[in-house]
Amino acid sequence: MEPPRNLTMMTDLYQLTMMYGYFRHGMGENLAVFDLFYRRADEEISHAVAAGLEQAAAFVQNLRFETSDLDYLRSLRMFDEDFLAYLANFRFTGDLNAVPEGTLVFPGEPIVQVIAPLTQAQLLETALLNIINHQTLIATKASRVVQAAGEDRVLEFGLRRAQGPDAGIYGTRASLIGGCEATSNVLSAKLFNLPVRGTHAHSWVMSFPSELEAFRAYAEVFPDACLLLVDTYDTLKRGVPNAITVFKELRERGHEPLGIRLDSGDMAYLSRKSREMLDAAGFQNAQICASSDLDEEIIWDLKAQGAAVDIWGVGTRMITSQNMPALGGVYKLAAEEVGGVMAPRIKISENPAKVTNPGVKKVYRVYDKETGRSLADLIALADEIYDEREPLHLFDPENTWKRMAVTNYTLRPLLVPVFKGGALVYTLPPIEEIQRYAKRELETLWPEYKRLHKPHLYKVDLSRPLWDLKQSMLGNG
Amino acid sequence: MEPPRNLTMMTDLYQLTMMYGYFRHGMGENLAVFDLFYRRADEEISHAVAAGLEQAAAFVQNLRFETSDLDYLRSLRMFDEDFLAYLANFRFTGDLNAVPEGTLVFPGEPIVQVIAPLTQAQLLETALLNIINHQTLIATKASRVVQAAGEDRVLEFGLRRAQGPDAGIYGTRASLIGGCEATSNVLSAKLFNLPVRGTHAHSWVMSFPSELEAFRAYAEVFPDACLLLVDTYDTLKRGVPNAITVFKELRERGHEPLGIRLDSGDMAYLSRKSREMLDAAGFQNAQICASSDLDEEIIWDLKAQGAAVDIWGVGTRMITSQNMPALGGVYKLAAEEVGGVMAPRIKISENPAKVTNPGVKKVYRVYDKETGRSLADLIALADEIYDEREPLHLFDPENTWKRMAVTNYTLRPLLVPVFKGGALVYTLPPIEEIQRYAKRELETLWPEYKRLHKPHLYKVDLSRPLWDLKQSMLGNG
Repeated sequence: MEPPRNLTMMTDLYQLTMMYGYFRHGMGENLAVFDLFYRRADEEISHAVAAGLEQAAAFVQNLRFETSDLDYLRSLRMFDEDFLAYLANFRFTGDLNAVPEGTLVFPGEPIVQVIAPLTQAQLLETALLNIINHQTLIATKASRVVQAAGEDRVLEFGLRRAQGPDAGIYGTRASLIGGCEATSNVLSAKLFNLPVRGTHAHSWVMSFPSELEAFRAYAEVFPDACLLLVDTYDTLKRGVPNAITVFKELRERGHEPLGIRLDSGDMAYLSRKSREMLDAAGFQNAQICASSDLDEEIIWDLKAQGAAVDIWGVGTRMITSQNMPALGGVYKLAAEEVGGVMAPRIKISENPAKVTNPGVKKVYRVYDKETGRSLADLIALADEIYDEREPLHLFDPENTWKRMAVTNYTLRPLLVPVFKGGALVYTLPPIEEIQRYAKRELETLWPEYKRLHKPHLYKVDLSRPLWDLKQSMLGNG
Repeated sequence: MEPPRNLTMMTDLYQLTMMYGYFRHGMGENLAVFDLFYRRADEEISHAVAAGLEQAAAFVQNLRFETSDLDYLRSLRMFDEDFLAYLANFRFTGDLNAVPEGTLVFPGEPIVQVIAPLTQAQLLETALLNIINHQTLIATKASRVVQAAGEDRVLEFGLRRAQGPDAGIYGTRASLIGGCEATSNVLSAKLFNLPVRGTHAHSWVMSFPSELEAFRAYAEVFPDACLLLVDTYDTLKRGVPNAITVFKELRERGHEPLGIRLDSGDMAYLSRKSREMLDAAGFQNAQICASSDLDEEIIWDLKAQGAAVDIWGVGTRMITSQNMPALGGVYKLAAEEVGGVMAPRIKISENPAKVTNPGVKKVYRVYDKETGRSLADLIALADEIYDEREPLHLFDPENTWKRMAVTNYTLRPLLVPVFKGGALVYTLPPIEEIQRYAKRELETLWPEYKRLHKPHLYKVDLSRPLWDLKQSMLGNG
């Protein structure tokens, strides 16, 4: 592993001006509670796949201002020396709770909860949002692509079109959390121990006098990993026949080919024709990989048209989440200790969807014991006590006449402790474990909520005490 | 400056498999020429602003495989020890030419040209594309936003929604190249010496018993940099009146306020009303900053409706280039030395727009001497000689009957040497210089090409010898 970068200065200036303000007004040590959550972003996306906690935790653990940082801040002539001295000794001493990576999350519910002195909690905002927004966005997109591909395999191929190095490095990590099987990205594969895949590009074919010679040369070097890109000149007239010629030569030498890759043209037509040609030549096991501006919509349509594709290589549109390139997560003050008492805080907005949920909260997922499927999520105040032997009364916070009483259920608190008093108390799982967990999470969600288009909306309800608190703070109490 | 990261392993696996193949076939030292260019991406975008060369150059300069990289590659069991020994000594020894950052670039013309042994040129592909694609994309988007804002100032506020740390760090840099005046991003400001801005968020207001107390507290700490966010509870009924109260108190103490920031609601209406209230209270110089899901389209429309905004804080939609989050740049083999002769190479495609331009090329911008405006770009073979005293005959490579003869012109070669024989020979300019250059570049482009919607397409013509070569390689010769 490369040493983690120090991202302490990766913040918006207003975090520092506010910290300075709190410091100067003697409010900096007031305990504050902030919630990180996302709002409904897109009607096609009913659920998100939480990701990025490992990098978020590394950021928090490494929080410290270097001398050059302090020199730079001094040069801005905005802060006094007392504050710079405070920053010099800055460490995170608070608590941070978060949902494990791979957890399915829904709009409005806290994914990360920070309970820390006000100045500290404020400094965390920008980097936490940057890291969690990004990886959750890409894991969510990848999950949609993988779901559209059904039983087929999906590879992540997007590095060259990612929005800078980190977007490739961590976007790949998030794609694997979302269910991709492997990546072309060597650095991510090395850093996170991911399966890595890759064969050759058009330039390989163009570097030889002919396509056939290029294929032969490739097969010679990789006799047991021979997957040939067949569209450099003409897929069906030259590419596939040349590949078959080389596959036959390989077989004579005792090796089986992996298959072919299609990278342009109509994937439904070309894949079916290629499949016929490969089958007719006796290469029923040769796989067909497709990789041309794919996303979940196109894969879904191509499969509906009978495309004979075994492996989908997905690049640009997944690594940038092209149709929705930002998740829109926010980080909002929910409570603040004043005079030893934790007082709830609310952000009011003309737009009801932007009014925040006040107070120190817990998030529960309610599972039906019989089916093992999740029924709804419940946001409650942290000091509420639930007894699973009692019926649970849920109601829609916006349309309160929509009610249900649930019996035979279990409640699972989604937020787990990650930092306690500044110390990392959470064991960060390896990617394979996160992948397995994310897969199980999806299995507990009814298919209605997973539909590619116009999914049914999963319920995220507020407990009665939280609802009452919110109403009273909105002046309806 | 933090030490540059080693991005050598940030590559697609197939670059390494191809390198290995060339190495094993004794072709690795063949000199090759690759062009990096983008294809027409979006009909609204007639021109792009090149960016990212500084980071691309750092990547090339730092190319080397660490021991842990070689150990990792060995663990894949794909490469032999000879090749790993070759990688252990890998350095870039070739030439790299590129357009300076801030240059306006058009579809199909090389932005970066690599002339190097085949294995080296191949390894550069992924990281060069990642870096140049990203920064060019964001500089282009920022340029559109800044053009839409006219004489108003534009600030970059996108860090929390950027696709990971680098997308924020380098996206900010690119936004400044595109014409933004300053950023909220402290780390980018420190790294690249950029102006940095920021005041306070809603959480500041929510941390005090009342908005008025919060505003007073802020004004106390920053009496000469007092810009107040007025929409936490109710912009016109409470926020602006409270701000005016505090501004009056400030003035009594001998300080002038900076202004207010609006972050929600209808910016046209709220900014005009706020302007009236500020003016009526005697704060004609207080500025109004708007910052709510803005982009060039919204700014354009708000200005058309008479929004009284002085400063536009633009976040998510600029830092992610939301309507087009990938540029789609590619890196294509153009020529290869075979037996001591440089042979042109072409990638053929059913789609004419995807057929590449073969050969070692130069790109010229043709300027009208009288107006100083650019007339067209010309892609020519590197060995062609032009005499500005002779008329220049240009023709459209797709519709060859579209011709023009140009007199009284100058030709400017766009590509400049960056690496020569592996050594950096280019002086990387500071951001302010790139900003000034980018601004001058825009001034040489006729307004028809800069229109926000449906701009006229700028001509990128091929020279006759290049056109003839291409036709002959396509079998039309």
